[in-house]
Amino acid sequence: MKVERFFQNPIIRPSDITASQNDYEVIGAFNAGTAIYQGNIILLVRVAERPINATDELLVAPVYNPKTNSNDIYKFTKDDPNILDASDPRIFTHSEQTYITSISHLRLATSSDGINFTISDTPTISPQTKYETFGLEDPRITQIGEDYFITYKAVSELGICTGLIKTQDFINFERMGIIFCPENLDVVLFPEMISSKYYALTRPVPKNIGPLSIWIASSSNLREWGNHKAIITPRPGKYDSARVGASCVPIKTKRGWLEIYHGADESHRYCLGAALLDLQDPSKVLAYSKEPIMKPEAEYELNGFFGNVVFPCGCINDSDGNITIYYGASDETTCGATTTIGEILDLME
Amino acid sequence: MKVERFFQNPIIRPSDITASQNDYEVIGAFNAGTAIYQGNIILLVRVAERPINATDELLVAPVYNPKTNSNDIYKFTKDDPNILDASDPRIFTHSEQTYITSISHLRLATSSDGINFTISDTPTISPQTKYETFGLEDPRITQIGEDYFITYKAVSELGICTGLIKTQDFINFERMGIIFCPENLDVVLFPEMISSKYYALTRPVPKNIGPLSIWIASSSNLREWGNHKAIITPRPGKYDSARVGASCVPIKTKRGWLEIYHGADESHRYCLGAALLDLQDPSKVLAYSKEPIMKPEAEYELNGFFGNVVFPCGCINDSDGNITIYYGASDETTCGATTTIGEILDLME
Repeated sequence: MKVERFFQNPIIRPSDITASQNDYEVIGAFNAGTAIYQGNIILLVRVAERPINATDELLVAPVYNPKTNSNDIYKFTKDDPNILDASDPRIFTHSEQTYITSISHLRLATSSDGINFTISDTPTISPQTKYETFGLEDPRITQIGEDYFITYKAVSELGICTGLIKTQDFINFERMGIIFCPENLDVVLFPEMISSKYYALTRPVPKNIGPLSIWIASSSNLREWGNHKAIITPRPGKYDSARVGASCVPIKTKRGWLEIYHGADESHRYCLGAALLDLQDPSKVLAYSKEPIMKPEAEYELNGFFGNVVFPCGCINDSDGNITIYYGASDETTCGATTTIGEILDLME
Repeated sequence: MKVERFFQNPIIRPSDITASQNDYEVIGAFNAGTAIYQGNIILLVRVAERPINATDELLVAPVYNPKTNSNDIYKFTKDDPNILDASDPRIFTHSEQTYITSISHLRLATSSDGINFTISDTPTISPQTKYETFGLEDPRITQIGEDYFITYKAVSELGICTGLIKTQDFINFERMGIIFCPENLDVVLFPEMISSKYYALTRPVPKNIGPLSIWIASSSNLREWGNHKAIITPRPGKYDSARVGASCVPIKTKRGWLEIYHGADESHRYCLGAALLDLQDPSKVLAYSKEPIMKPEAEYELNGFFGNVVFPCGCINDSDGNITIYYGASDETTCGATTTIGEILDLME
């Protein structure tokens, strides 16, 4: 399996991003959704920020307040007896409430060559509703006709939902509501209707029963979803033994819809796998990649804010079958790698 | 607040039910959905069964196998090192998988007086799909025109989903698919469209972030749902401090949609509360009951398979404002109690 990383990687780093306010620092610029718009390659980068005054002695959570249209800063001392768990650098739990140590917005980056990006100086899509008080994360962009639909994690005290935003120009954005209630993330829309229905891959996160699997749902109008089916479940003993989730918008090939997904094992190592779904009925899985098509190997993939992670939210493919995968490395930077549809299909069993 | 329990309670006990097969025993006949059909009161009772040979030494889980159309029996010794948790009599966890110690189907019971029921000798709706291998539970019935729509917990290794079944005669049933993916339960449909949309109350169960709250969703066709909003969250220090979920189909009153819901505290005591939702926009909560409208008090509510629980899945109301609430007591029996819409509205603040 041949995957060539850009030698320029990481192509976007936190230090490349202007923080949204003076007293904030950018700690992550990763997990970018991708699209082609007016001949350019668009990345909608997840930018994670935190207050600069965050110290080692304090646990700090920036939380958007819709009433003031600004962030409140929640601060707790690490020896607070109500701090239940602070082992994960991304989150901590105080009393019954889990907080996130950063808050994410989405930032536009544009490129003509797919490698050198011009990054907007200001946030492109910021928290706005009570479902986004902990931020917007991990966008996927699907072009359907003239419209671009952005699915994203809308994170708040109320839970981790999936929101839908529509745009035609990446300047004006229309929120279309919460399309999947908690806990559901890693949602990607198929790029065309199949037998008069829209389709989405989803990743519910059940509390009591059930593995962390990829489900599929269908819709008549993109706002309302039903006919949920579980299609890809974790495989014991493999690289995706603990959880799987859709990563890229499915690519239509002659043999089926090619879905590049992520799979993690019990050690939280995130790799990429691929699955082939039936063209007429994408709830049918025809084949899986025998081995991961990509795993954390480069230094910037092994080390970082949350190391040992490669995590794409989009790819760009051309009519010759070339694919450029844009992926988050270690929950910190944005990287690129190229391969071909043929290479991935050869790996299928 | 005046609620009068039937002196005949429990009106349906496990011993009143013929098991679905000779080697099974019925351990629960509870959480019944309600409807009026051809002038009679219908209960669709959740019947929980287990193999008779379940002994104190073994943990046993009956699991429906769609390939054989019969149940497999999973047996584990209690000292099996892979048994992670068996403290709850309803469930246990072996390795990564949670099992249920019984399997439920739905059974029709019919009455002309609402107290004395004739119970079908055989299961009315049994597990059939891969989403029902652990059973069908806690049905709610909403009549819309000539059609009766049954929402129910579809429970399997894949998770706890909400399925939808349509019937016109309680003899022929059409499965309309999984309408909410894991983990989502306690779903009730409103009995009419509001501004050309169907509405449902749902109870997502998020794993990582978010309280156990009642959400609302809307639909154009009952099969596909969107525009999810959180509307009723647990209230710290009250009887519903740990979790809330819809119980009965909302009743249309002049002051708003009256929703009788259940709320539990940290000790797992389940009480009934009431909320009033805006007639035109049911995502707006106008008022709550100051105190529970019903709490476990009778012997059969305090003690049983899982005691300290009153849990309705339906009620019957007449044009004079009388309400009969049918509720599960202690996850074991079916009981009834009467009150009035006026009594509940008087409790609102």
